[in-house]
Amino acid sequence: MNMLLPDERLDDLHRNGYHIIQHPNKFRFGVDAVLLSHFAMVKENETALDLGTGTGIIPILMEGRYKGKHYTGLEIQEESANMARRSVAYNKLEEKIAIVNGDIKEASRIFQAASFDVVTTNPPYMNSGHGLVNPDMPMAIARHEILCTLDDIAMQGSKVLKSGGRFYMIHRPNRFTEIINTLSKYKLETKRIRFIHPYVDKEPTMVMVEAVKCGKPFVKVEPPLVIYKEPNVYTDEAIEIYYK
Amino acid sequence: MNMLLPDERLDDLHRNGYHIIQHPNKFRFGVDAVLLSHFAMVKENETALDLGTGTGIIPILMEGRYKGKHYTGLEIQEESANMARRSVAYNKLEEKIAIVNGDIKEASRIFQAASFDVVTTNPPYMNSGHGLVNPDMPMAIARHEILCTLDDIAMQGSKVLKSGGRFYMIHRPNRFTEIINTLSKYKLETKRIRFIHPYVDKEPTMVMVEAVKCGKPFVKVEPPLVIYKEPNVYTDEAIEIYYK
Repeated sequence: MNMLLPDERLDDLHRNGYHIIQHPNKFRFGVDAVLLSHFAMVKENETALDLGTGTGIIPILMEGRYKGKHYTGLEIQEESANMARRSVAYNKLEEKIAIVNGDIKEASRIFQAASFDVVTTNPPYMNSGHGLVNPDMPMAIARHEILCTLDDIAMQGSKVLKSGGRFYMIHRPNRFTEIINTLSKYKLETKRIRFIHPYVDKEPTMVMVEAVKCGKPFVKVEPPLVIYKEPNVYTDEAIEIYYK
Repeated sequence: MNMLLPDERLDDLHRNGYHIIQHPNKFRFGVDAVLLSHFAMVKENETALDLGTGTGIIPILMEGRYKGKHYTGLEIQEESANMARRSVAYNKLEEKIAIVNGDIKEASRIFQAASFDVVTTNPPYMNSGHGLVNPDMPMAIARHEILCTLDDIAMQGSKVLKSGGRFYMIHRPNRFTEIINTLSKYKLETKRIRFIHPYVDKEPTMVMVEAVKCGKPFVKVEPPLVIYKEPNVYTDEAIEIYYK
């Protein structure tokens, strides 16, 4: 069965024998998605929604890692949603993962309010317009807040989560104050934080947060997640996350 | 000149030959004050106010480290304020440091609004009542939110700061979400964050924040500040901060 369109490629995810379809110039996942799928957690019988799923990497990796009941990926770009669906089919995961083509801003209309136990999101990091070259490019849509903002994501994430449900996001540390404030605005109380540092003595380049809908204020800040021991040499923890 | 009262002792601060008076069971400074005085910064001709100065450790250390014009320490406990004044006198710093006996909640009445360039604070970390044994003890007042809360400190700190002025605080990571939200509530925009970890692979035990009054949202999260390489062996950076 040839499921690949021109220029697409099939990559091994090194997890459960799963593969994923990527398009080098348009739709490919980053290390952020891999890190978030490890930081987030889906328990037995829980349902999870990934907002802006792109290639479908997060639902596919999480299905391989956890015993959740069902995963949904919401993606606004039709071409990307189509590719994600083909990856789901390639891995024979149609029973476990649904890819929905739609807008994050409509999530609480597309799905029922208070219907998910877990929401994950690896949203566009950059403020709209900030360093933007071509706003029509698929990559630009994935990286810049062209079609949705942090506020939209927090609002919709909160609406579709059950009370006590968990919201997992990876983002840029330089927007950290805004992240905490925006999540709080929608009753997503930040409970767990982990910064990702390229080296132990360098500033973090990414941050992951877990917020609980209607949670009480008490935060666990985790030890730094350090990626490299030295140039081109991963730390033991990075190897554990990427390959185990 | 004997400036010590019974049970008090005089300790060398290893900075400019400065010393400080402490009372082992009642008023003594912690490593937090030393770390904050290094994280905070006072530029030439700037004025700084320390909210809840205790022994006066932060103004004295900062006077030794920076070229600020004048430092003020506000302390509610009369006995502690008196001790801090004697430390200032011992170091012959009466021209540079004023110790004021008064309530943080009254700071913007005691001082002029928008009159300081810098505010520092090493406030009580613990919610009032949380694990509290004796609320009348001087140590309890320094450690628990008996006489003032995080909200009081942020409100008063913001009022006494000039627009663009800098607010520096050290606190507990488990109150981090509340810290960010409370500072934002009073237009103190968190701009710089540093977590303090006992060991590199352990959770942080303290966090320092710099917020700017009416600042724009953009945060710099610094590399982790790690205290120990191994048990009883400081990291080079901890040695630098404590002794240099």
